[in-house]
Amino acid sequence: MVDIIKVSAKSRSTAVAGAIAGVIREHKHAAVQAIGAGAVNQAVKAIAIARGYLERDGLDIVCMPAFVEVDVGGEERTAVKFAVDVSRTFTPIPPPAPETPPSAPE
Amino acid sequence: MVDIIKVSAKSRSTAVAGAIAGVIREHKHAAVQAIGAGAVNQAVKAIAIARGYLERDGLDIVCMPAFVEVDVGGEERTAVKFAVDVSRTFTPIPPPAPETPPSAPE
Repeated sequence: MVDIIKVSAKSRSTAVAGAIAGVIREHKHAAVQAIGAGAVNQAVKAIAIARGYLERDGLDIVCMPAFVEVDVGGEERTAVKFAVDVSRTFTPIPPPAPETPPSAPE
Repeated sequence: MVDIIKVSAKSRSTAVAGAIAGVIREHKHAAVQAIGAGAVNQAVKAIAIARGYLERDGLDIVCMPAFVEVDVGGEERTAVKFAVDVSRTFTPIPPPAPETPPSAPE
């Protein structure tokens, strides 16, 4: 049983992405839960970022959102729960050379 | 080339879900684009609802969000683009009895 990664509108998407990537590496599955538009938006951004993180591990992910009823302080709320799964594994491409110096202003 | 389904914060999620389901039935792939938290939330809800619609067709879907830069009235904005794909096909379970009595004469 993998813990649910709970996301709020104030969650940093890169931090959530790191959490998702960590859980995926270990369990090949993660569950991400968000209540409200701001939180759902952060969750989606985190999943997009996590995909980039996991590319380096040769893991490609997909997700599927579903509605779930959750209890928040005794009140029933509708949350969106994203099931995140590994869709395929591949040989990771070596990381690119360090970034080139910033280009001249356009 | 499949048209992109553009979602706004004011889009009805069931209407978008119907559009997604229609495109998936025909092309087995759909692209859904949203700018801003409210629009991303509607898009996610629509994808969750579309999954229910497509179950009746024996189609299971997954999605993957990614960031894309789009031009909105000459201004560059970051959008979230969801690639929606069929992950598996299965024999659909017969639909439950209709909720309302059939209108056809008996």
